[in-house]
Amino acid sequence: MKIVALAGGVGGAKLVHGLSKVLPAEDLTVIVNTGDDFTQFGLKVCPDIDTICYTLAEVANPATGWGRDAETWNVISEMEKLGAPTWFRLGDKDIAYHLERTRLASEGKKLSQIVEKICAIWSIGVKVLPMTDDVVSTHVITDTGEDLPFQDYFVKFGCSPKVKEFRFDGMASAKPAFGVIESIREADFIIICPSNPFVSIEPILKVNGISEAIGAKKVLAVSPIVGGKTIKGPAAKMFQELGFEPSVTNVMKLYSSFLNYCVLDDIDRNCVDAIEQWGIISFSTNTIMKTVEDRIRLARFITDICLGVGE
Amino acid sequence: MKIVALAGGVGGAKLVHGLSKVLPAEDLTVIVNTGDDFTQFGLKVCPDIDTICYTLAEVANPATGWGRDAETWNVISEMEKLGAPTWFRLGDKDIAYHLERTRLASEGKKLSQIVEKICAIWSIGVKVLPMTDDVVSTHVITDTGEDLPFQDYFVKFGCSPKVKEFRFDGMASAKPAFGVIESIREADFIIICPSNPFVSIEPILKVNGISEAIGAKKVLAVSPIVGGKTIKGPAAKMFQELGFEPSVTNVMKLYSSFLNYCVLDDIDRNCVDAIEQWGIISFSTNTIMKTVEDRIRLARFITDICLGVGE
Repeated sequence: MKIVALAGGVGGAKLVHGLSKVLPAEDLTVIVNTGDDFTQFGLKVCPDIDTICYTLAEVANPATGWGRDAETWNVISEMEKLGAPTWFRLGDKDIAYHLERTRLASEGKKLSQIVEKICAIWSIGVKVLPMTDDVVSTHVITDTGEDLPFQDYFVKFGCSPKVKEFRFDGMASAKPAFGVIESIREADFIIICPSNPFVSIEPILKVNGISEAIGAKKVLAVSPIVGGKTIKGPAAKMFQELGFEPSVTNVMKLYSSFLNYCVLDDIDRNCVDAIEQWGIISFSTNTIMKTVEDRIRLARFITDICLGVGE
Repeated sequence: MKIVALAGGVGGAKLVHGLSKVLPAEDLTVIVNTGDDFTQFGLKVCPDIDTICYTLAEVANPATGWGRDAETWNVISEMEKLGAPTWFRLGDKDIAYHLERTRLASEGKKLSQIVEKICAIWSIGVKVLPMTDDVVSTHVITDTGEDLPFQDYFVKFGCSPKVKEFRFDGMASAKPAFGVIESIREADFIIICPSNPFVSIEPILKVNGISEAIGAKKVLAVSPIVGGKTIKGPAAKMFQELGFEPSVTNVMKLYSSFLNYCVLDDIDRNCVDAIEQWGIISFSTNTIMKTVEDRIRLARFITDICLGVGE
């Protein structure tokens, strides 16, 4: 059973890690959002790709879910002395990875090739694909009309500005990275990870050809909203600012045109009826992933659904 | 008495540091070779500028003369694990400086403006000017016809290839950085530091307009060759490979068309007669700079000459 997971950062990384523990490596492909990517100090930084790879390589910081374990901060503390803007906290090991990626990019390597090389070094058997090798930049337009590059909104301003809409610069001409469409075509199931629907999943779905390819597949989504809140990140806040209640129902409504199955938390079973109006079949369980065992348990719950409905 | 020093890396930095201790800051300007500058991992690295600034800020590694004191190597040791080419040893503090410089350059700042900003942060009162804000790249052509970018020759191959000639890419259109010609015009003395004549001093002299401006001035050179050897670096080896004896005489011959005075080591007093044939007046002293006191002593010896002959 071949599975393609669509993922953003920490939430997606946790589920993908669980899936990598219950599926043979060759049966799992992860397509990762690159709309958050940006250039800082000349370094090419890809937050979601990095979080996915660090997590799969089991070198992520377990406390934050992003960044490296046993990280040190010698470079950035020296940069502070130089008066450099250090709101984006780059650790020393993280910088090493960004430097090598920047070098490989300057040699003409595509992002997908760079990720493949790094995955091989870290013995990541799962195929990790950026959604595109082209540059797509997520921008947040705030209620005051301000136009913020995503990391400015997310890190510099700590998600405090109120969201009015999103813009994905470069999307019109972005082509799926090599292997993306093929892996979707070969998949038995597409799993939408519990990632931010607006800024993690939507950019992936907007890349030319991806939605069309997914439309022909069985799709299962795991809700990033649990009891009206997000475990991490601004998804619930974004729902509110856009005028919707942050609920599992409203997450699944966004995906309703192509979604077949959804996994929601036991706490949200009251949403099942509303979701079924779009013909989406719901399954509930404890979706909170605090430990690696939680990730594996949720992954097994999901693959059991896929196996059951696939019969 | 206003002095302009032309300098490359470690030897130049030591003398400039000494001069900064015996002259009022506003009377000393250093024009620094940028032919060794290169881009590594997307970072703009300027080895001679950095060595001069680190030394003047008294944060240089006292053991090597280049790089930072109390340096750590966390980034590069992680890069080794990623299989990155790490022959150019970038320390964590060094990387911080390169990252901030790269950021400032990406904002459109010129190298001279970046150096000015960093000097202000480090309370360096002496004016440090790159020879040019344009890109000039020193290449070493070897006896086998190989064309090596300078850092490949110097660091990657440890100066082992035999030199046939040098090429300074971009020199034809390189303009002196803002302030370079003005500072030479205002100078009472030009001091050529004990730096490599071929790859540190020659590039500075070749920048459009610099030789012409220097031609109208009193010029004093300090020999980088002592007893037929160099304290550091490949100058003596280069002389041999180019077919000349590495001697103070042959250094001063290179500068003879515009040189008025030279300072050589007591050990090389036998060269005085040969040098005088070009009308160059020689002064001898102990030119070895092992300690900061040595730097100050040599600087005072030189400024005393300038004061004496300037009367």
